[in-house]
This record gives sequence, structure tokens and C-alpha cells, in this order.
Amino acid sequence: MVDSKKKTPVAARAKKPAAAKVDAVKAAATAGVAKPDLDAVRAQIDGIDHQIQTLIAERAQFARQVGKAKGKLAAAVDYYRPEREAQVLRRVVDRNDGPLSDTELVRLFREIMSACLAQQEPLKIGYLGPEGTFSQQAVHKQFGHSAKGLPLASIEEVFDEVAAGNADFGVVPVENSGQGTIQSTLDMFLTSPLKICGEVELRVHQYLLSRTGRIEDIERVYSHGLSLAQCKQWLRENLPGVEKHAVVSNAEAVRRAKKSDDAAAIAGENAAHVYGMQVLAGPIEDRSDNTTRFLVIGRGAFPTSGNDRTSLMVFIRDQPGALYRILEPLARRDISMNRIESRPAHGALWQYAFFIEVNGHVDESPLKDALGEIDAFAGEVRVLGSYPVAVP
Amino acid sequence: MVDSKKKTPVAARAKKPAAAKVDAVKAAATAGVAKPDLDAVRAQIDGIDHQIQTLIAERAQFARQVGKAKGKLAAAVDYYRPEREAQVLRRVVDRNDGPLSDTELVRLFREIMSACLAQQEPLKIGYLGPEGTFSQQAVHKQFGHSAKGLPLASIEEVFDEVAAGNADFGVVPVENSGQGTIQSTLDMFLTSPLKICGEVELRVHQYLLSRTGRIEDIERVYSHGLSLAQCKQWLRENLPGVEKHAVVSNAEAVRRAKKSDDAAAIAGENAAHVYGMQVLAGPIEDRSDNTTRFLVIGRGAFPTSGNDRTSLMVFIRDQPGALYRILEPLARRDISMNRIESRPAHGALWQYAFFIEVNGHVDESPLKDALGEIDAFAGEVRVLGSYPVAVP
Repeated sequence: MVDSKKKTPVAARAKKPAAAKVDAVKAAATAGVAKPDLDAVRAQIDGIDHQIQTLIAERAQFARQVGKAKGKLAAAVDYYRPEREAQVLRRVVDRNDGPLSDTELVRLFREIMSACLAQQEPLKIGYLGPEGTFSQQAVHKQFGHSAKGLPLASIEEVFDEVAAGNADFGVVPVENSGQGTIQSTLDMFLTSPLKICGEVELRVHQYLLSRTGRIEDIERVYSHGLSLAQCKQWLRENLPGVEKHAVVSNAEAVRRAKKSDDAAAIAGENAAHVYGMQVLAGPIEDRSDNTTRFLVIGRGAFPTSGNDRTSLMVFIRDQPGALYRILEPLARRDISMNRIESRPAHGALWQYAFFIEVNGHVDESPLKDALGEIDAFAGEVRVLGSYPVAVP
Repeated sequence: MVDSKKKTPVAARAKKPAAAKVDAVKAAATAGVAKPDLDAVRAQIDGIDHQIQTLIAERAQFARQVGKAKGKLAAAVDYYRPEREAQVLRRVVDRNDGPLSDTELVRLFREIMSACLAQQEPLKIGYLGPEGTFSQQAVHKQFGHSAKGLPLASIEEVFDEVAAGNADFGVVPVENSGQGTIQSTLDMFLTSPLKICGEVELRVHQYLLSRTGRIEDIERVYSHGLSLAQCKQWLRENLPGVEKHAVVSNAEAVRRAKKSDDAAAIAGENAAHVYGMQVLAGPIEDRSDNTTRFLVIGRGAFPTSGNDRTSLMVFIRDQPGALYRILEPLARRDISMNRIESRPAHGALWQYAFFIEVNGHVDESPLKDALGEIDAFAGEVRVLGSYPVAVP
């Protein structure tokens, strides 16, 4: 509708193979010769956009075919395949030569897949609410913005709504790189029939927030104990004489800090937005790789993506050497273990329970064989799920 | 890295012109003949993804050239052009033949542009915080997720931070389809030198939230008076005997409703997430086209996008027929007026002020000529900005 008035001859070339053009422009730029004409570059971009759009429309058509493979066009949940999405995104990362970062490209392809998948009925994703909006960010990161998020009040409810079919999948936090495992999430699997279908890793940043925005006013800092711990060094260096108060959540910390001029809170940046606070400093966490890991839970199991992880709950009787005998079949097959944690066993029958995460998929060797062996020793081996390793 | 084990001959065809393939698959589907093989369709999609990725990388390279046109690679703010983005998105809508909706495609292209623009230093966008996250949604809708949002405590602060250069642009709410103009936003332009560079329209949905999640418990409903008004009919039909309490904001309503089992709040869905409330029902607004309009404010003016709107503040002395004489040059040129509102004139010099929105750009006829004429009659004509009409 709105055509540029100055049509340059370059615009007409937009349908030629594009690689050569890029190289030419790049060469011109790096050699420091005459800058390319702005209108010409924009005409090139317009040509590229037209091609991208044609391809996205084709992709959406093909996605409909996948959706129809089982009959008439199905709801997204009927043809969403986490292992397939992981494969697509890994290919995107593998062939990325820049200039955009892997993260940006993965994000764009997530959104394209999300839009293609939501054509009939979008995925409904339950997630945990009150602690801020990191969980919602995890939903968007994993499922894109075309999925429909259902904010819920507790981890239990996320499990319940997915089990009842009111949500297609759920996203629940399971560990923080500083804090370790969130026990209450793992405990849900002791009674729930749901399966782990995926994992999401989210970089989490901490900010210092206050009502006045003046760091010299601060006498007290409120935050969750774990957030205080994550920012320990920063606090020592920047607010050495200040009282630290650990409270039940970062949201609670912000509410308290909002009441007086001499208090600050450590919380996510979004909290500043939600509660109308000023950002004094951030990110202030001591480890720049501070991440929270979320699990995607669903009603079914999915095939291998080629690079998977498996979460197990292993119950054993009190036998000398029982743990060793369980680990040995894994070690012998060079199956690497990402995590092992002893858990209180809630039933009377087994005295010990272990939460174990290993590389591989239960349907494939060598994990399949190792689990067969372990089964003979352990009281019970429960597979919580095999799922694609998180794509960054 | 993770290649499908079953390579089909179709995979090798992925580089051929794609339109013919789509047509073939479509024809097969509509004719009800044999369903296409799932692996074959996926191979097609993989081929398309590869092409899309190549094109996005090229687009990003060209975007760098635009950024370099002024010297070395500049920060995004130095080459962000709202009129250009609007043109790109209108073309996307014009050539859309489905199957994705215009909204989904515009969203994807916003994200692609956002990623391409953020290569050096992303745009920093100030926005208004405490009332919920609609403003943040408006930022994402207009600038994509690669821009950096700066949550601020008040509309005044958004203006201040943009004026001071701490934010590149600001996003402030200016009217709701039910509620009319937000006067305090317009009043900022009486003293601020900032210009309107864009508008964003956001569909806003209202939800009924409570602590228990049981509608039969509800005796009282809290919300902002305007939100109560937006849901009047729904409340009459579904909660006829229930007390309505108008409070200062929807966030305040949620905080109150959270304190007892027999209270509910009307608010955005995000509020349920932030405050850990249950969603009882929604969307419950009576008009399905309930929208909030936001203005993008910045330090500079931009050229025409080909489909623009201009906001004016016109000050006049108390002369009989003065308003008529101001409107006549517009009417004579068939310039449509979207809005006119009388405003209190804060200075002593002019007795009347009018906020007027018209179609067109100040740099172009016929608006340019009309404004020249009006200038002669009016005490003062201040152009708040000419900007692209919102792309849905």
C-alpha cells in the first residue's frame, strides 16, 4: 500500500540469489569504500522481507499438514512435539554464522514455530504465579508468545490443571543455580502421574530497588534469603554497613521496601515495574551465570530428540551397597549423571529415595539397558521423564 | 548436529522453488487424497527453516549497513526509524494471503526487526509501571522483545527520562476506548519539548479474579470505576446481587480482593499471576474491541510514513468564531479529524486550548498548507508530532 517513491534499480534485483549481494555490501563496508546508498539497502531488506514472509506462510501451510496428519486440523496439543522443536532449534544454532546471536535466532524461531502451531487452537500452558514473572518468562521462552499462559497460584495447581486437561502443559521451577533443587516441585512427582517433557533454563538477574531511587538513603535491604546470598559480594562492596533482612519472597521484600525511604529490596527488574519502584543498581548478582531451571510437565511421554536427559526417582531398601549397585550400571556404560540427591521416602516400604538425572533417553541404549539392570536391584525405579536438553 | 535418521528423497528437494510444493500438498489435502508423509512434510519444513535463517542473517547484515551509513555501527536509537518500520509492516499486511493472521505476522516481523536493530546497543524504552503490565505489553508490541524496557513510576518520569536521554523513547497510555483521553498524559505536552513519534493500540481484556476461585463465594467486586463500567453488562447478568466497589486502580482492587474469600477483583489476567489469584472468568468486558491507546514519545521528529496522523495543540484567544476559522482550512481540504477536545489553557495569554488529531503529516500537503492558514488565526499552533497510524 505504501510504496517508496524512489524506486531504485537495486529494488528490482531483490529476487536474485542473496548471498552474493551480502558479500558485495560486506566487502564494500570492510574495504572502507563508498558507503552503500541507504535507499538501496532498504530495497534489499524489502526484498528479503518478502521472501521471509513467503517462506513463513509456506511453513505455516506445512505445519497445518502435520496437524492434519491425524485427520482434521487438530488443536496444537495434539501435534506439539517437544523433541522435534528441540531438533529444529539445534539446527538453527548449528548453522548460525551470525551476525545475530544464537539466543536471538532461537527466540525468533521459537516465535515462528509458536505462530505456526497456534493456527487452530493454541497451547495452554499453566505456570506458577506469585513470586514475580520469571515463570511467565520461562513459558514465553519455551512456547513463544502465541501460546496461552494460564497463571496459577501454586505448583500443586499447575500439576492439577495439567492432569485435569485444563492446561496442555505446565511450567514449574525446579532449581536455581545458587539455591539448588526446589524440593516441593520434585515431591509432586511422588504422587502425580505427570511426565517431564522438557526443561527451560532462564538467566535470572537481581536488581536493587527502592522508593526514592537514592542509594545514599538505604539503611536496610530486604530480600529472600537466597537472593541475598546471590548478591552477597555486591552488598559487601557497595552497601557495607547496611542491615540485611531475609523475608519469605522477593515480592514481599519489595512490598516492605516500598513503605519507607531508607529501605531497599533485591528482586527481579519486573518487580520495579509492578510495584512502581526505582531501579538503583543491577544486575547485582555475584555470579553472572545465575539461572533458574524450570520443568515442562505434561500427560504423555515423547520420543528421543537425539540429545536428551532423563529424570528418575529410585527407591531402595536399606541394604549395604545398594546405592553403589544402582550407580554401577550407569558408570559402566559411561552414562553421565548430572545430579543425584537423596530424598525423604514418603512410603513405608522403601527406606531411601534418590532423585537422579542422567544423560540419554529411556527408549534408547545405553540408558535403556542400564535401567533394566538397575530395576533388578532397586525397590522401584520411576521414570519421571525423558526430555530434550534445554536449548539456550 | 541432530539429523533425522530417515532421509527421504523429499529432503533433497528442499531448495527448489517452494510455491509449487505448497500447492501440491494443499491440493492433495483438499482433494482428500492420501495424506502426506509426516517425515516428508517435516523435511520440507526443515528446508524452509534453513532458507528463513539465511534470509534473517542477510537482513541483519543489511541492517548493520543502515546502522553504519552514518559512520561506525551506531546504537539502535541512531538509526531506528518509526516511519520505515510502519512501511515494512504495512507491506507485510498487504501481501498476507494466510494462513497466519495479520496480527501474528506483524508480531513476527516486529521481532525480526527488533533483533536486527539490537545488534549494537538495543533501544531503551521507558514505560509506566504500577497499574499492571499493559504498558509493558505495549512496549513489546511496538519495539519487540530485543528492546530494553525501563519500568518507571509515573508518566512524568517517562517524559523526564526520555528528555534526559536515559531512555531512547517512552511509551505512555493516552486513551481507552471506554474511558476517553487520559488528560494527565496530554498535559505533559504543555511543558515538555518531546515529540509524539508513534501510537500503539492494545486490545485490553478484563478478568474476574478471586482468592478461592469459586464464583458462588463472591459478595463484593472491586475494580477501577472504568473497569467496572467496561464490564457492566457481564456483572448484571452473572453477578446480579453483588456489591460493586470502585477503587483507585485495578492493582489496588486485586490487593483488596486478596484479603477475603467473598471478594473478587476485575483486572488484567497478568494481575492474577502477579498476586497469586484465581481466574474465575474472562474476558468479561462488554465490548470485545476494548482497546488502550499508547503514545510513543521521543526527542526528534520523523518523516512521513505515507499514512500518518498528527496531534496538535491549538491555543486561541476568545474571539467569536475562532474555533470555526481553525477547523475550516482542514474541512476545506478534506482532512479528516479523529478527535477534538477542549483543554484548560494553563497560560494567561490564550483563553482556549484544543487538542486536535488529524490525518496527515505536517511536512506534506494538504496538512502543511492547512496549518499555514490556521497559524494566521490561532494564537499558537503547537505540533505535538506526526507519526505513523498504528499497525494492528
